[in-house]
Amino acid sequence: MKAVRLHEYKKRPVIEEIPEPKISSPTDVIVRIGGAGLCRTDLHIIEGQWSHISQVTLPYTLGHENAGWVHAVGSAVSTVKVGDAVIVHPQVTCGLCRPCRAGNDMHCENAYFPGLIKADGGMAEYLRTGIRAITKLPPGIQPKDVAAMADAGLTAIHAVRLSLKTDLMYAGSYCLVIGAGGLAHIGIQCLKAMTPVTVIACARSDGSLELAKKCGADITVKVDGTQVKKILEITDGKGAQTIHDYVAEGGSLEWGHEVLRQAGNYYIIGYGGVVNVPAITFVAKEINYCGSIVGTLNELAELMTLNAQGKVALHTKIYPLEGFNDAADDLDGGRLHGRGILIPNLK
Amino acid sequence: MKAVRLHEYKKRPVIEEIPEPKISSPTDVIVRIGGAGLCRTDLHIIEGQWSHISQVTLPYTLGHENAGWVHAVGSAVSTVKVGDAVIVHPQVTCGLCRPCRAGNDMHCENAYFPGLIKADGGMAEYLRTGIRAITKLPPGIQPKDVAAMADAGLTAIHAVRLSLKTDLMYAGSYCLVIGAGGLAHIGIQCLKAMTPVTVIACARSDGSLELAKKCGADITVKVDGTQVKKILEITDGKGAQTIHDYVAEGGSLEWGHEVLRQAGNYYIIGYGGVVNVPAITFVAKEINYCGSIVGTLNELAELMTLNAQGKVALHTKIYPLEGFNDAADDLDGGRLHGRGILIPNLK
Amino acid sequence: MKAVRLHEYKKRPVIEEIPEPKISSPTDVIVRIGGAGLCRTDLHIIEGQWSHISQVTLPYTLGHENAGWVHAVGSAVSTVKVGDAVIVHPQVTCGLCRPCRAGNDMHCENAYFPGLIKADGGMAEYLRTGIRAITKLPPGIQPKDVAAMADAGLTAIHAVRLSLKTDLMYAGSYCLVIGAGGLAHIGIQCLKAMTPVTVIACARSDGSLELAKKCGADITVKVDGTQVKKILEITDGKGAQTIHDYVAEGGSLEWGHEVLRQAGNYYIIGYGGVVNVPAITFVAKEINYCGSIVGTLNELAELMTLNAQGKVALHTKIYPLEGFNDAADDLDGGRLHGRGILIPNLK
Amino acid sequence: MKAVRLHEYKKRPVIEEIPEPKISSPTDVIVRIGGAGLCRTDLHIIEGQWSHISQVTLPYTLGHENAGWVHAVGSAVSTVKVGDAVIVHPQVTCGLCRPCRAGNDMHCENAYFPGLIKADGGMAEYLRTGIRAITKLPPGIQPKDVAAMADAGLTAIHAVRLSLKTDLMYAGSYCLVIGAGGLAHIGIQCLKAMTPVTVIACARSDGSLELAKKCGADITVKVDGTQVKKILEITDGKGAQTIHDYVAEGGSLEWGHEVLRQAGNYYIIGYGGVVNVPAITFVAKEINYCGSIVGTLNELAELMTLNAQGKVALHTKIYPLEGFNDAADDLDGGRLHGRGILIPNLK
Repeated sequence: MKAVRLHEYKKRPVIEEIPEPKISSPTDVIVRIGGAGLCRTDLHIIEGQWSHISQVTLPYTLGHENAGWVHAVGSAVSTVKVGDAVIVHPQVTCGLCRPCRAGNDMHCENAYFPGLIKADGGMAEYLRTGIRAITKLPPGIQPKDVAAMADAGLTAIHAVRLSLKTDLMYAGSYCLVIGAGGLAHIGIQCLKAMTPVTVIACARSDGSLELAKKCGADITVKVDGTQVKKILEITDGKGAQTIHDYVAEGGSLEWGHEVLRQAGNYYIIGYGGVVNVPAITFVAKEINYCGSIVGTLNELAELMTLNAQGKVALHTKIYPLEGFNDAADDLDGGRLHGRGILIPNLK
Repeated sequence: MKAVRLHEYKKRPVIEEIPEPKISSPTDVIVRIGGAGLCRTDLHIIEGQWSHISQVTLPYTLGHENAGWVHAVGSAVSTVKVGDAVIVHPQVTCGLCRPCRAGNDMHCENAYFPGLIKADGGMAEYLRTGIRAITKLPPGIQPKDVAAMADAGLTAIHAVRLSLKTDLMYAGSYCLVIGAGGLAHIGIQCLKAMTPVTVIACARSDGSLELAKKCGADITVKVDGTQVKKILEITDGKGAQTIHDYVAEGGSLEWGHEVLRQAGNYYIIGYGGVVNVPAITFVAKEINYCGSIVGTLNELAELMTLNAQGKVALHTKIYPLEGFNDAADDLDGGRLHGRGILIPNLK
Repeated sequence: MKAVRLHEYKKRPVIEEIPEPKISSPTDVIVRIGGAGLCRTDLHIIEGQWSHISQVTLPYTLGHENAGWVHAVGSAVSTVKVGDAVIVHPQVTCGLCRPCRAGNDMHCENAYFPGLIKADGGMAEYLRTGIRAITKLPPGIQPKDVAAMADAGLTAIHAVRLSLKTDLMYAGSYCLVIGAGGLAHIGIQCLKAMTPVTVIACARSDGSLELAKKCGADITVKVDGTQVKKILEITDGKGAQTIHDYVAEGGSLEWGHEVLRQAGNYYIIGYGGVVNVPAITFVAKEINYCGSIVGTLNELAELMTLNAQGKVALHTKIYPLEGFNDAADDLDGGRLHGRGILIPNLK
Repeated sequence: MKAVRLHEYKKRPVIEEIPEPKISSPTDVIVRIGGAGLCRTDLHIIEGQWSHISQVTLPYTLGHENAGWVHAVGSAVSTVKVGDAVIVHPQVTCGLCRPCRAGNDMHCENAYFPGLIKADGGMAEYLRTGIRAITKLPPGIQPKDVAAMADAGLTAIHAVRLSLKTDLMYAGSYCLVIGAGGLAHIGIQCLKAMTPVTVIACARSDGSLELAKKCGADITVKVDGTQVKKILEITDGKGAQTIHDYVAEGGSLEWGHEVLRQAGNYYIIGYGGVVNVPAITFVAKEINYCGSIVGTLNELAELMTLNAQGKVALHTKIYPLEGFNDAADDLDGGRLHGRGILIPNLK
């Protein structure tokens, strides 16, 4: 089959023929790929930033945002059958450790993450994953239209679900969304569909702010050096009850805490920067900085429901699988608006 | 009446005669002081560290850990009567703003904090406070024996209560307590009385570790450069589910995150240092850094119950009110084990 | 002033002149009534059903759903001033007992409830209440347009807020609303504005089902003997995750549990009937029956925000204060669609 | 192998030779039984009370409280190996449905319950179960000493864990435990080990009250017709914040609600009786009746930890497997104090 293979860090991946994956455990599922999302993390993998974490030997196949159809199943798999349209949770979990048993999929002590950690990914004709990473698509939903929900969308809904565990999400309270890109534009839609809060979106470009507005942001603020003053004005001088930082680099962590309200929560979803806050600020304002990573299979299923209900939609651009490097160039060059989706055997 | 008055920052306070406080609002309560705790924050106030926050004009009276007997009440006060033995919550709240109405006393938007912010404190014969800052003592409890519960103890039980809102406090999970001083030694007792977790206490001195043991710590670890390795060994290489950092300066924030488990919570109770953690660490481990400040009146009442039940006790050293500077010297010089309590008209 | 006074149980109230209420405690507030909602509970009071609970001596003034303008304030009141437009929480709380300090207004141990328990109500020109029962209206909102939010609306949003504390309110989960009258039609709007659940509304009349649809119900089911079968079909044979029973008499409690899902919550908001469920059903399905009463001041403030945002609206019919008995007859006779509002000095 | 087989309802089970169970699915585990607890539910099964629920054809093997050693494993099982000492969760779950993925083991949509529903139980030399129902014993713990923890103990700790999700479990609050038998005596120990509440235990016999005291109950009250009055006296006339009803028949449901505090929770753990409470009581007191059934694997693991720590212990009486009917007679006749444990091949 064809696959996007990384042979050497800092070099372009190659699209080449490799053997199809085989069932190797009773809980395995082979998925025929209908669409594989391109993520900025893929660029970071190529650059080598994950080389000490990935636990793979090169070459390996990229792609951790996948959807398609069940192609083959292991002997212990009975909940899906060949031909079912499915979306693939990025992490394959054991289901047996304490975190798994508590529903905390991302903290599984025995997981692998195809396309990132320990295994080949889904930028290929077929992907090997596990039954615990599979959720069926609602009727009428096409894999290529939702593939990017598997990681980008899931990460966004998870941050919203974490926030909903607090008492900070009420009508009239503010959630400040920093960024309005591939993840954040889904996050804004989830906030509007799932909570009664007022969403303030902020970003550097007018295009991003327009997208935020289309996604339902109540208020938009340009990040141009005056944003702290403006956000404080909007919030009666008190700041936002919650902040969802999808950027977390290039400055947002430096000014974000200035617009976080007393007793507020700052969710870190993006990465790259450093949290640098005096302990006295944590104590005097009694604020929390909260990490947020990907999400659970139940959250992915909820997102699919929101999508089927027409409440949360993705903007995507289609490429053939062979066009990986074009798509990567477009992403790197800022020419890719919405999420890039690679499709094998695209006609 | 006699009072400990600060006339100038960086100079010693003076014990002098000033007029007794008067009822000035219908919700005021005047308390005859039975004991006023000495806190390291008092030393910081003298040094001037709070001068830009305190919103007071010098001279003013120190003392924010108070207990005594009701001496006079305003016209709107009916729940206590003259002579009742009481402990005084350090913050006087309005009871009407959204945080107050949600039970978050420390986030009152109209509060004052006698002895620290906006008003004279309780190192005196009498203190003016408000009815919302008063809780009656259980029968048989003496004000001087619990005065330090009002701030030091309350801060400790509050951190435990915050932790109990998570799913991290179960039999077999670890809570690492950093520090074993005035606050932490109460925190350890609260952890043992209120939760089933295994407490690991760590501190620099053998004396502190001994105190931690007496207070119920299951395991003690000396902070001598090998503590990270030892704590990881104790916790199967995974770290503690929760950390209560009563120090948060002088190094603890630098090594603490290394022993925080995946999905764990780091509570910042002490202050002085800076949290300096890359966003990728927050995200990859999905950890939280949580501020914790003082506590609620209900928590103070719960602490009084635990004290009356014999489950949480204070170690104190008694000084006459006039001995403030001796006590402060003892505290500063490391000669004060347990909490120093000033008593007016001590015979 | 004019007031609607009940002189004898089972007899019609009389509209008569009585003295205006006076400030009698430092925390009192006198409100000039802009509108007073008529509630089915008023009919029950007249019938004498509350006589053993009310702790009043006749005659007394009805009316527990009030809004208007501040007319006078006690000496301890500083957060509102004469002329402010306000809505009045039905219960006046002490702010000092443990439930109050935890934010559970309805469980205050020292409360009174004007127009129902211990005090005269607001079907009059003026009402005496307390500062803790007052929340200011957002700019532009008229008292008469929101008066019924004070009890009917508050009761509805509270049930939604209780539900949001569980993990049962997700996209794709079902909330079955039984009833579509004065409270339930607000409840449906709150569910749609505050949560992502699918709302199934059921009622006996086509008119009620139409109102439910207008309020945003996703699915409506007529209560005609086939409703259990239909609701099970809609919910894949599993029933609804939550039920909000605004009726709780005349049959709903008999069939409701048949459509409650495993691990579901049944909220009892209406009353009149009896819960009669074998313990084995509680255990085998691990279901909960949850009482719900009125709500908190913060919830009332949230509801005012939703109203000002145009997300939750009331349907009302205006009567002069003197028309109380006409309004009561209309309500009793099923001719009052929406909530009846009495207005003093209506021109 | 030898097994306790029920051939006909209302007749005594027979101890007879049957074939050993075989691995039939990749996730199966065969356990060599070290001890099987006798439960009152076994008597109910024999009487036929479960015949319409059990989905079995007679004869089948009793026994749903099992511990032992791994004897054989399916091809997908890698977390235990032959010889491991284990305790067996009574329900075998799929791990894939929404409830399983949220950590709610008991609400698995595809479960079976050996010895009760759909499958042979563990009163035999060997039991077939699944890997998701297995948790390893801490070093040094013997299967026969903890077998009854698998159901009786788990049911008790689960009720405590449910209670800990509320704000009702604080120092000074009351938990009323109704009953002091096989489950309740573990529940009392869990309450004392895991929470700071004051435990009031009530039962009909002095022997039970003595056992409750030994288990840590702070106060005991005899159920003799005066218990309501006494419990109200103890609780300042307000009742208990939580009730754990391990009986829920023969009267407790009739008087229990009289001693449930405003805003309190009544946990139904036993069964047999009927909840019969007017809706107005639910509403006016805003109380909850909460079903509680068995528990999760994580809760079973926590209980094993508490047992290993010496905080929660079982009282047991040993019988050979062949002595089933003697044990059943002792239980039925009130001669079995503590839990009866059947041991195959007892020497």
